[in-house]
Amino acid sequence: MIGRLARSLRLVVITDRALAEPRGLLDVVRLALAAGAPCVQLRNKGEPARELLAIGRDIRALVREAGALLVVNDRLDVALALEADGVHVGPDDLPVSAVRTAVPPGFVVGRSADEPEVARRAVDDGADYIGCGTVYPTSTKRDAGSAIGLQGLRRVVEAVDVPVVGIGGITVERASDVATTGAVGVAVVGAVMASAAPAEAVRGLLSPFQAA
Amino acid sequence: MIGRLARSLRLVVITDRALAEPRGLLDVVRLALAAGAPCVQLRNKGEPARELLAIGRDIRALVREAGALLVVNDRLDVALALEADGVHVGPDDLPVSAVRTAVPPGFVVGRSADEPEVARRAVDDGADYIGCGTVYPTSTKRDAGSAIGLQGLRRVVEAVDVPVVGIGGITVERASDVATTGAVGVAVVGAVMASAAPAEAVRGLLSPFQAA
Repeated sequence: MIGRLARSLRLVVITDRALAEPRGLLDVVRLALAAGAPCVQLRNKGEPARELLAIGRDIRALVREAGALLVVNDRLDVALALEADGVHVGPDDLPVSAVRTAVPPGFVVGRSADEPEVARRAVDDGADYIGCGTVYPTSTKRDAGSAIGLQGLRRVVEAVDVPVVGIGGITVERASDVATTGAVGVAVVGAVMASAAPAEAVRGLLSPFQAA
Repeated sequence: MIGRLARSLRLVVITDRALAEPRGLLDVVRLALAAGAPCVQLRNKGEPARELLAIGRDIRALVREAGALLVVNDRLDVALALEADGVHVGPDDLPVSAVRTAVPPGFVVGRSADEPEVARRAVDDGADYIGCGTVYPTSTKRDAGSAIGLQGLRRVVEAVDVPVVGIGGITVERASDVATTGAVGVAVVGAVMASAAPAEAVRGLLSPFQAA
């Protein structure tokens, strides 16, 4: 039996307006949710807060209707304004400890970490889950550094007792390998956003992580 | 007699790390506060939240010690994490109404507006003050559009009953002209940050706005 958060983190669909083209971002998100995606992360780097809020409101409506989780990347203020379920922060964003002091109880805080020590510190500071990667080399995140592979992911999984999600270059084909590490799920950008068949991709990515 | 907020808004010193060089930003802020600057706005566009928070903590300490006001530009989340006194938002940032719902009572919310209608709407949504400009053409804000002049500023002052601060190309020489419009003060970037004598600049900028 796994917890509620871990169940939501079996698949995190990260938004990317450009990769979704020529389809609208909302259309791809709608397909993903209908296929069972349990979590959407709103991420549109460099977009002004107001635009992020505008698209975020539409996405929130879809996510709520589907009973899924909505997490916002980096911009805690947008997350709060949206009444999202959580925020995901990386090394350049607000520290987890600062985020914790500014959010209501129950608000989900995720932190990126590709090393056990960083992950442990994040959990000590109050992170509810860890996004771990880059697992495989990827083109959608240029500054991702070198890939840590399944072994690197496993090391982080073993270092913390909160859910860990693998991220970076994960495809339907690779998802079952990722599941062998003990990660509760995967976070993907291109594998859903750029997919010609987003619903099929969602089902394929979820299948190794179906909870008992 | 003017209110406490209006008194703090007689001069808003907006930070700019590049313009402060070769001096450190903190050194210039320290000089400005010592000379009586009543408000500092932390603005470093494009800087990651974590860096903004780091420099913000140092600035907060200086501002608190001086009994001045600290406002953060755009990033409400950084403002909350810093326990700053307020946030200043522009047209691309979070709407004032969204900010209002996410902040504690007494938190100061400023909004940029160069037209009476925009200013009125911002006040209706809960803005505590208006930053109005660009008053004079300026090089420190490239996307500032065309200057509205003293007449444009006066129109906004007359349209709302919250304090209005003039911004854009304001120098020591121009400050007394700005004061004739009914603006409670001025907000400046270059006039203090790039000044060879920041303390003198602060005193000069403040002098037309000395409150009874």
